[in-house]
Amino acid sequence: MRRSPPADAMPVNYTPRQPEELLPVRGVALGTAAARIKNWSRDDLLLIALAAGSEAAGVFTRNRFCAAPVTVCREHLARRDSVRALVINAGNANAGTGAKGLADVHAICGAVGVALGCEAHQVLPFSTGVIMEPLPIERMLAAIPACRSKLGADRWDAAARAIMTTDTVPKAASRRVRAGGVDLTMSGVAKGSGMIAPNLATLLAFVATDAPLSRPLLDELTPEIAAQSFNRITVDGDTSTNDSFVLAATHGAAVPPIERRDDPRLAPVRDALTEIAVELAQAIVRDGEGATKFITLVVEGGRDAAECDRVARSIAHSPLVKTAFFASDPNLGRILSAIGNAGADLDPLRVSFWLDEVLVVVDGGRASSYREEDGKRVMAKSEIAVRVALGRGEARATLWTCDLSHGYVSINADYRS
Amino acid sequence: MRRSPPADAMPVNYTPRQPEELLPVRGVALGTAAARIKNWSRDDLLLIALAAGSEAAGVFTRNRFCAAPVTVCREHLARRDSVRALVINAGNANAGTGAKGLADVHAICGAVGVALGCEAHQVLPFSTGVIMEPLPIERMLAAIPACRSKLGADRWDAAARAIMTTDTVPKAASRRVRAGGVDLTMSGVAKGSGMIAPNLATLLAFVATDAPLSRPLLDELTPEIAAQSFNRITVDGDTSTNDSFVLAATHGAAVPPIERRDDPRLAPVRDALTEIAVELAQAIVRDGEGATKFITLVVEGGRDAAECDRVARSIAHSPLVKTAFFASDPNLGRILSAIGNAGADLDPLRVSFWLDEVLVVVDGGRASSYREEDGKRVMAKSEIAVRVALGRGEARATLWTCDLSHGYVSINADYRS
Repeated sequence: MRRSPPADAMPVNYTPRQPEELLPVRGVALGTAAARIKNWSRDDLLLIALAAGSEAAGVFTRNRFCAAPVTVCREHLARRDSVRALVINAGNANAGTGAKGLADVHAICGAVGVALGCEAHQVLPFSTGVIMEPLPIERMLAAIPACRSKLGADRWDAAARAIMTTDTVPKAASRRVRAGGVDLTMSGVAKGSGMIAPNLATLLAFVATDAPLSRPLLDELTPEIAAQSFNRITVDGDTSTNDSFVLAATHGAAVPPIERRDDPRLAPVRDALTEIAVELAQAIVRDGEGATKFITLVVEGGRDAAECDRVARSIAHSPLVKTAFFASDPNLGRILSAIGNAGADLDPLRVSFWLDEVLVVVDGGRASSYREEDGKRVMAKSEIAVRVALGRGEARATLWTCDLSHGYVSINADYRS
Repeated sequence: MRRSPPADAMPVNYTPRQPEELLPVRGVALGTAAARIKNWSRDDLLLIALAAGSEAAGVFTRNRFCAAPVTVCREHLARRDSVRALVINAGNANAGTGAKGLADVHAICGAVGVALGCEAHQVLPFSTGVIMEPLPIERMLAAIPACRSKLGADRWDAAARAIMTTDTVPKAASRRVRAGGVDLTMSGVAKGSGMIAPNLATLLAFVATDAPLSRPLLDELTPEIAAQSFNRITVDGDTSTNDSFVLAATHGAAVPPIERRDDPRLAPVRDALTEIAVELAQAIVRDGEGATKFITLVVEGGRDAAECDRVARSIAHSPLVKTAFFASDPNLGRILSAIGNAGADLDPLRVSFWLDEVLVVVDGGRASSYREEDGKRVMAKSEIAVRVALGRGEARATLWTCDLSHGYVSINADYRS
């Protein structure tokens, strides 16, 4: 039933980071193994071990059918104990699996606890893959010691590869910043290419730093960073059962903890973490299932950000708009129609929009300066910005998305992800 | 730029009515002509003339960028005068066309008024086709006398053909009922195959009857019938700028008017009108762009109908669910995930669903009786029913939709509709 994505599939203007560009983070070790969760030969189980005293916070899917590992993750984080490990499998989502699914997750956390010498509740579990299939729990438990034996600080690239499903490339990023006179490092990995939508999607992202961020600050920063990165992307409007973004701080840098928002070291750390999250989020859209175009939607002049966001999502989720981007066809009435469908009480006569620098619509109608050849020129590009001005306020929102191609249908009709 | 739909495209289990199955309605005459609105040789302009004293009511798109003809239709109906004609063009939506678009519509209504000897405000105008292009108004005005010269009571089939855009087949239906000792007749035509969504879509539907329904009753019946037919279908979740459903009563039957809801003649008339509307609505889904499967979604056990409707639309609009139907792949976790994404505060552990008669999920997890071979057998069919039980109330909702295929992408990437 499972087939690979089309051999010619490749992301839009995204080259994976070279392994040597991915920086070790003090207090973080990564190990992978092949648990043969599907009929893959590659590694599909990832263990991320965190030094004693590490803290983590996360944001998770809003899908009511959240997967068993998401339920357990939330419970473990609510204990507010130090977090010592993340364990992630690809190939099976462990969602819609009822009581057995929960029991399996507890077994995995227990096995990781034994392997690393910590409590089971200090382990955060994650899964991605097909829904409503039981985990091959024996093979997974057997693979945990193998993950442990391969733990290393320089294995971010292998980590990114182990969590891929329909992804065509691994996604990882690093930054180093100087703050308070010391170098602080942060690295992260993510996976996802379909089911990417309104509030996270089968999107898993893990970012760790040696900056000594306190747990209360992590709790604040995680949703703030998600709102600027993973929640600003959409591929197909579907939100998965397993979405998770976790930010971990190992306190590996031998400096005093960062506990207050007015700590001058926070701004560079926060900016670098946000940069990593945006890079990973955009990489997910660039590797969106079947994507051939990367589209930046900016909606401005709204009464509030929620209204701008609704308009951006209405454009991003319109199959007619998405297929027009795929076809490089400046069928721009479809964008106008999608704006009108956003459910906002807009005054159409105040709406304008641009394709890159080309003014297309002004006062709700086609701009007299607009020429189809200009529209065609922009639509033929692989990176396109659509800017919409609603003309009724100061708010704005940005959303990154991709087109809808034959590749999307092929991947999702042929591949049980 | 424009190409025809793929030559092998055909609707799912829908055979157009033979011309002789379409019944003349006393007081209704139909005429078509070729205005060459696009580079078509076929007739693309339809005039429906109604006898003096006819009444009509309509429901229209909720898209904020409604087309110029929709604006004028609403104005003309608000005059509450007798309606004497409908004029419909295919190939150009006259949407996003500003002041010129409105002036063009008034010119067309004026020309029809001259041709038929009625006031311009007694004419209801409609358009379907590409957005943001000016109408070829001279050619359209020149074609109106040709429409008038061809007016005939038996031209329902030609009428259905003249309003097609990406439709692969004409859509028309008739019923005859006996009420109050006389035969009453009703016939209708519709077009649409994409942009079919939450609250009508580029869906045009015109149903006329010789039953002497009063205008107040028409005003009540039109939204009631739409709620059971055209608002129960979705192809791609897009709502067009031009959606219109109009119900006209010519009073051609020489019987006393039907003015009250307790008139015993109303029930059979209303049922027959609803049957026509459901037949046309389902024909639109069966001819949905690229459709290979006809899916009936029934969501029951909700707290209210709106909640059931949200769950049904979440399933119907999930590209992952739609591509799984296309692939005949019982990847049923995608349905579970779509239910969880509906935005309702469901208790997942009370949710069950069936594919036809096969119980798939019970208490939020896979049914122990479920076998993949049963799922595959149902998914391979061209007509599939999904029944979801939410387990928290008595409300229910039905929605008809189709799958998402390569054909959809081809049609919308290649064809500027």
